[in-house]
Amino acid sequence: MRIDELYVGQSSSLSKRFTLEDVKAFARLSQDNNPVHLDKEYAENSVFHQRIVHGFLTGSLLSAIIGTQLPGNGSIYLGQTLNFRKPVYHDQLITATVTVMEIRKDKPIVKLSTVCKNEQDEVVIDGEAIVKLI
Amino acid sequence: MRIDELYVGQSSSLSKRFTLEDVKAFARLSQDNNPVHLDKEYAENSVFHQRIVHGFLTGSLLSAIIGTQLPGNGSIYLGQTLNFRKPVYHDQLITATVTVMEIRKDKPIVKLSTVCKNEQDEVVIDGEAIVKLI
Repeated sequence: MRIDELYVGQSSSLSKRFTLEDVKAFARLSQDNNPVHLDKEYAENSVFHQRIVHGFLTGSLLSAIIGTQLPGNGSIYLGQTLNFRKPVYHDQLITATVTVMEIRKDKPIVKLSTVCKNEQDEVVIDGEAIVKLI
Repeated sequence: MRIDELYVGQSSSLSKRFTLEDVKAFARLSQDNNPVHLDKEYAENSVFHQRIVHGFLTGSLLSAIIGTQLPGNGSIYLGQTLNFRKPVYHDQLITATVTVMEIRKDKPIVKLSTVCKNEQDEVVIDGEAIVKLI
């Protein structure tokens, strides 16, 4: 999108269930083999009580929205803050939502609210993104 | 690690070259199919002049260090800020480094500096992580 196609309050969402296979693939890619993501018995004896999805994998849905939907093509990702509020378990349906918060007048830069929720409508990740448009 | 095994200035690093296959795998996982990551011709005509690695994929090296090395097992990831300073191209050697900045006295919570550099020693991502230890 071009900057003049954006308005404050505009939003876009994307949902996904991250499976054990997804978590294994991400562990290989990132080299993050922490057993809390992969080892059933270890995870059951952890504070999480079951295996969790990597925070960066859940958060990647936000990057997908920014890269493909809002603002989509032409976006240059300048920054992202991520607060990991609650664990995400395998196979939970996660919905990521990106909302335009501010559009700068002086430069083609926007601030976006970035939130991921679980099926219970609980926030699992929140934060903000800064994106430049070309 | 336990909190009493950590000290300010302690650091740990991890390096990786992200290949086209890695980028394709991450695009499938995240659904971030922005052509600047995948389409050679599109990327050559973009401001980046060649295909780039997803910021979240490069940043995942930081998560790998935190989840497996420093502090490693027992870490609960509370937050992460990411500033995407420079593009990362396919097959560039990226070195991520996590350094202990602050250890709270009242709670088992640490603040970590998180930096990714390319082979030219240029910062491509910087930011901070907040991690709780159990």
